[in-house]
Amino acid sequence: MSQNTFAERLTAALGPDVVFTRPDDIAPWLADWRGMYKGQAQAVLRPRTTEEVSRALALCQAEGVPVVPRGGNTGLCGAATPDASPANVVLSLDRMNAIRSIDTIANTLVAEAGCILGNLRRAAQEAGRLLPLSLAAEDSSQIGGNVATNAGGVNVVRYGMTRELVLGLEAVLPTGEIFHGLRTLRKDNTGYDLKQLLIGSEGTLGVITAVALRLFPRTDVRTVVLAAVESPAQALSLYERLFQACGARLQAYEFFTGDCLDLVLRHAEGVQEPFAQRYPGYVLMELADTEDEAALTALLEKVIGQALEDGLCLDAAVSASLAQLQALWKLREEISEAQRADGPHLKHDVSLPIETIPAFMESAQQRVRELDPGIRFYIFGHFGDGNLHYNLSRPEGAPREWAARDGARVTDAVLDEVHRYGGSISAEHGIGQLKREHFLHTKDPLELRLMAGIKRLVDPAGIMNPGKLL
Amino acid sequence: MSQNTFAERLTAALGPDVVFTRPDDIAPWLADWRGMYKGQAQAVLRPRTTEEVSRALALCQAEGVPVVPRGGNTGLCGAATPDASPANVVLSLDRMNAIRSIDTIANTLVAEAGCILGNLRRAAQEAGRLLPLSLAAEDSSQIGGNVATNAGGVNVVRYGMTRELVLGLEAVLPTGEIFHGLRTLRKDNTGYDLKQLLIGSEGTLGVITAVALRLFPRTDVRTVVLAAVESPAQALSLYERLFQACGARLQAYEFFTGDCLDLVLRHAEGVQEPFAQRYPGYVLMELADTEDEAALTALLEKVIGQALEDGLCLDAAVSASLAQLQALWKLREEISEAQRADGPHLKHDVSLPIETIPAFMESAQQRVRELDPGIRFYIFGHFGDGNLHYNLSRPEGAPREWAARDGARVTDAVLDEVHRYGGSISAEHGIGQLKREHFLHTKDPLELRLMAGIKRLVDPAGIMNPGKLL
Repeated sequence: MSQNTFAERLTAALGPDVVFTRPDDIAPWLADWRGMYKGQAQAVLRPRTTEEVSRALALCQAEGVPVVPRGGNTGLCGAATPDASPANVVLSLDRMNAIRSIDTIANTLVAEAGCILGNLRRAAQEAGRLLPLSLAAEDSSQIGGNVATNAGGVNVVRYGMTRELVLGLEAVLPTGEIFHGLRTLRKDNTGYDLKQLLIGSEGTLGVITAVALRLFPRTDVRTVVLAAVESPAQALSLYERLFQACGARLQAYEFFTGDCLDLVLRHAEGVQEPFAQRYPGYVLMELADTEDEAALTALLEKVIGQALEDGLCLDAAVSASLAQLQALWKLREEISEAQRADGPHLKHDVSLPIETIPAFMESAQQRVRELDPGIRFYIFGHFGDGNLHYNLSRPEGAPREWAARDGARVTDAVLDEVHRYGGSISAEHGIGQLKREHFLHTKDPLELRLMAGIKRLVDPAGIMNPGKLL
Repeated sequence: MSQNTFAERLTAALGPDVVFTRPDDIAPWLADWRGMYKGQAQAVLRPRTTEEVSRALALCQAEGVPVVPRGGNTGLCGAATPDASPANVVLSLDRMNAIRSIDTIANTLVAEAGCILGNLRRAAQEAGRLLPLSLAAEDSSQIGGNVATNAGGVNVVRYGMTRELVLGLEAVLPTGEIFHGLRTLRKDNTGYDLKQLLIGSEGTLGVITAVALRLFPRTDVRTVVLAAVESPAQALSLYERLFQACGARLQAYEFFTGDCLDLVLRHAEGVQEPFAQRYPGYVLMELADTEDEAALTALLEKVIGQALEDGLCLDAAVSASLAQLQALWKLREEISEAQRADGPHLKHDVSLPIETIPAFMESAQQRVRELDPGIRFYIFGHFGDGNLHYNLSRPEGAPREWAARDGARVTDAVLDEVHRYGGSISAEHGIGQLKREHFLHTKDPLELRLMAGIKRLVDPAGIMNPGKLL
């Protein structure tokens, strides 16, 4: 049958205000935001209800039409961008953006998949609760996409990945059947926990339409310390001390090198050198509590004072106001943008058993230098989770094409080192199209076989997000 | 082929010190500790290594011999007790009891499945860390069984169920293949999270042989409050206030009725009436922190003082010493034993959306009273998680056979009410044999179909723990 006919059947079933087929209308849905991936599609669907999603998927499955679910398009691995097949249907959740409930006794938030994460965070805040999932793209990313990719962010060290915040979810399976798992129960020990398969499945098993999330007490009392360290090993010792002394108050533990700071000071506006001298590395820690700012500051000053005495850091600056707190965070947050301004580069979102980070950094650097001694290292990340953004920029004077030309073998070397240290080639960004080859080569064959079996079980026609992940 | 021949082949493959077949030797492995279930088996295996487990399962799968994994035998649903088939092989993990590592930088503990939970808790404590999983049977239960049943306990309100503590696991699949998922990474976003299927699978998908768990900062500073409340609704309002004000410090929020206290005072030794008068209900709260006992007590006294003023509780006693703290906990901990001493009764481990607890308790009581107005209610549980142990004792003067004779229709009524309120028929004890019928009748058919598909995928010969869960 012709594609045109299928689009017409979609329109007949869902209405012309849900189905878009004009090239101009669908063009914005065919590329990722970084412009790394571009695909094709015969139609874009923008359903308003779970029932419309169900009807759409049933039609697609009946005719074997591939479906690409789309959230806020903030992913870094191309999971929400269609491949080159002109048969694709892109299914956007952006119109399903209602908050269904916020409950301050059960401490739950139930929201449709298309809700913007930042809006949910603000709604929880207004209700007197904290939704701790927080990441750079939170004012564009959608909660359905966050769950489908098991997003991480800056608060994982305290609250865990998105997976740990999900109490329940509603999804439409490729058959059009609705998975009614939108439970808010804190405890439910009745059989295999099927929702776990959908979390982090990157759209390959179905379309998440709504989620139930845990809320936490608001932690409005916050203090930030920027500590200077001589090495990643020292940052580890400092982490051990902080973890022990501050307990659950420790809600961010971010690391960046002196080279990262250099880049930020060069490219970002409104940032200042934090200390009188430059150090090899920096750790940004945030502590937060429900109340009593004086007690929190006193605790932090005591712990940092002892750490300085015991040689666990070289220098430290404690935020004394919200403005100072934000200024210190800005040094960390501007790194990605500063690196972008510096030109094309290679990103590696990897994780390691945290105690191996110093050894990994040394041996990975050696291997990269063997390939090209001029490569510049910009390494930062969620150190408390063992998560490094191990980013590499071209040698001074190298052409802009360097990343495209030499990137593959440099990335191979980095990911091989990660694998050798028992780490993960994707800590928080997922697999998508970007890391599919590395994923298929490094994952245990038994796990790949089980994943493929689950894929066949849930999506027998193989229509969900082809070419991604598996 | 004869069973005897198979046992001989097992012995040839594993050695006579691993395979036990004499009736006297295997008798202790055929019943659950409560004496509710009894089954048969041709052999008991006590392997010492993952490799031995692998060889055993490969042999069993090749000949279609059913395998029943066995941990500490502390489950309440008969999941570790073989059924009536004389072909069963019971596989005990008790000899696999080594702690492989405790890491205070990564904050991880790696242990073999047969380790006793209490021993792991003490080992973590000695290393300066907290393993928060804590439950009545912790000095008998094995960590492999805790993970296989996704155990709960008293600290779930702060730290989550066992599932949330598991970073990785190693398991032997029914084919004998080893699932090498014993990772300690905090972040690993590479495909479907397969270990989630094994957690809570009650031995139906394979044998867990080792686990990697998260550790937390020690919270040695502890305070307990026993508050008297007029109703479950008041207990809810008090919970909302405590959650907001105390944040992560709140690590237990337990409820019990005045009738439960009555039973404890009647049957337990060394317990005292906590207040000058009896109240309708009680809440036991534990707050804990890494340091500064004075600050914790001050916070609690402020919050409880305001709660008393605002009518969120009727009376309150704060522990001023470790002895007082333990005495208050004893009032809660002795309930199960006191009820056992009182005679046969019906246990229901259920969970509810927490905000519905007051309405559920009212309507469930009404339905039970309609069946028999003399039934006595002993209701307690992990209120902060929405988890009630909704236990019922026979009417005064009813024969001991009452539970066996009338139990089924009373349980049907209770679980039907749970279902009506959107709750779970098993909050933390699992399904096993005990709740299998109710599970199969109440679970969504789509979920049951997916679970059956996963079971076929992982255990195509259907040898793992037949008659349990699915």
